[in-house]
Amino acid sequence: MSWEKKEFLYEGKAKKVWSTERDGFYVIEYKDDLTAFNAQKKATMEGKGQLNNEISAHLLAYLASRNIETHFVERIDERKQAVKAVSIIPLEVVVRNIATGSLCKRLGIKEGLEFPRPLLELYLKNDALDDPLVTEDHALLFGWASEEDLKIIRAISFKVNELLKELFRKRSIVLVDFKLEFGRTGEGRLVLADEISPDTCRFWDSSTGNRLDKDRFRKDLGDVLGAYREIWRRLSAKEE
Amino acid sequence: MSWEKKEFLYEGKAKKVWSTERDGFYVIEYKDDLTAFNAQKKATMEGKGQLNNEISAHLLAYLASRNIETHFVERIDERKQAVKAVSIIPLEVVVRNIATGSLCKRLGIKEGLEFPRPLLELYLKNDALDDPLVTEDHALLFGWASEEDLKIIRAISFKVNELLKELFRKRSIVLVDFKLEFGRTGEGRLVLADEISPDTCRFWDSSTGNRLDKDRFRKDLGDVLGAYREIWRRLSAKEE
Repeated sequence: MSWEKKEFLYEGKAKKVWSTERDGFYVIEYKDDLTAFNAQKKATMEGKGQLNNEISAHLLAYLASRNIETHFVERIDERKQAVKAVSIIPLEVVVRNIATGSLCKRLGIKEGLEFPRPLLELYLKNDALDDPLVTEDHALLFGWASEEDLKIIRAISFKVNELLKELFRKRSIVLVDFKLEFGRTGEGRLVLADEISPDTCRFWDSSTGNRLDKDRFRKDLGDVLGAYREIWRRLSAKEE
Repeated sequence: MSWEKKEFLYEGKAKKVWSTERDGFYVIEYKDDLTAFNAQKKATMEGKGQLNNEISAHLLAYLASRNIETHFVERIDERKQAVKAVSIIPLEVVVRNIATGSLCKRLGIKEGLEFPRPLLELYLKNDALDDPLVTEDHALLFGWASEEDLKIIRAISFKVNELLKELFRKRSIVLVDFKLEFGRTGEGRLVLADEISPDTCRFWDSSTGNRLDKDRFRKDLGDVLGAYREIWRRLSAKEE
């Protein structure tokens, strides 16, 4: 299938989006840009876009094979994916298995605490407001999502967590937490959208505890690209 | 009844607490201190403690008369109340009818927006963390409240909102928002605790929109004590 870009629609921090000749489909291009702390810290790393395109395509296809409906259609080339056109719900959905990052700072929770069950949090997608934490009551009252939407979002998010935790566990990686976004298709269905990559997940090596994700960039741990490459190496390796 | 203070237990920003000779009861003394922005702004206003003691005693007794169980027993004198000893749930419960204050700043909501239904928010009682917003999922996972506690807290808070909104409406005052705290009695029941006063509520005059609460202090609007006095004048006036 050929995917001709038609109209440039949007440039985000890590991706660009175009409409295509085919109605109801977009092309997404993964950029080499890396940002953290609401883009206060920025860098460009050659090859990051390609790795995230590979990793995200792989994970979205895997989830689709496990009956999670996503926007993903196919990987087009090194940097690009074809996806279903969806309108994005303005909520970032975070699922946490282990306490780290902003949660510890905000609520005084001990770094590294393993939760007895996953924690789901919602953040309003709004850079100007620094993506604030919101409650389901906020989402309902201000019309960001309906009661039914939230039910679906919770169910899919926890299912994705189970599937990915297991997938990564087999590759000696602990899935610490991750961010999902959801979009509504033309037919009105909520599906998983955006990307799943070391930009949007925290991965810890099971034996060494080494960080294999964007925390290497946030915390200046060095060899950011090496960590992304390692994730892709383990994901693309033949399962034993 | 005489209420002899026994042991000094705790000094908060606006109150002191003592145990009493009678098991299961505390004495609370209302201070003249006024603080805002997590005590970054401070003042003392002679007479504030007495007014809040009067207002809070009046409102808690009113709610009790409407079948809301509270920790309040009786007003002892100008500054003091006797209350049931409870262990405080570490959550501040905020009910909002109109958007103002931190909500607008945090979520970009238009100041003065009237909600179609009240909004309930939970904040962790933790000065060192600046009382952060939390979700019910946080409260459950970190053991700050149980599922059953949250159900009771929601039900009582919305009932209190209905009762107080109506009480103040008859006195030409709009109840904009307020903060509640809950405590567990020795028998394990959750009851309304703390105070209800212009320190913990936002009151707007129905006709002029004048602020009749601690926002006069927060925003340097002047005549803070006059506003508190006006609330007590209207509350204590014989209903027509």
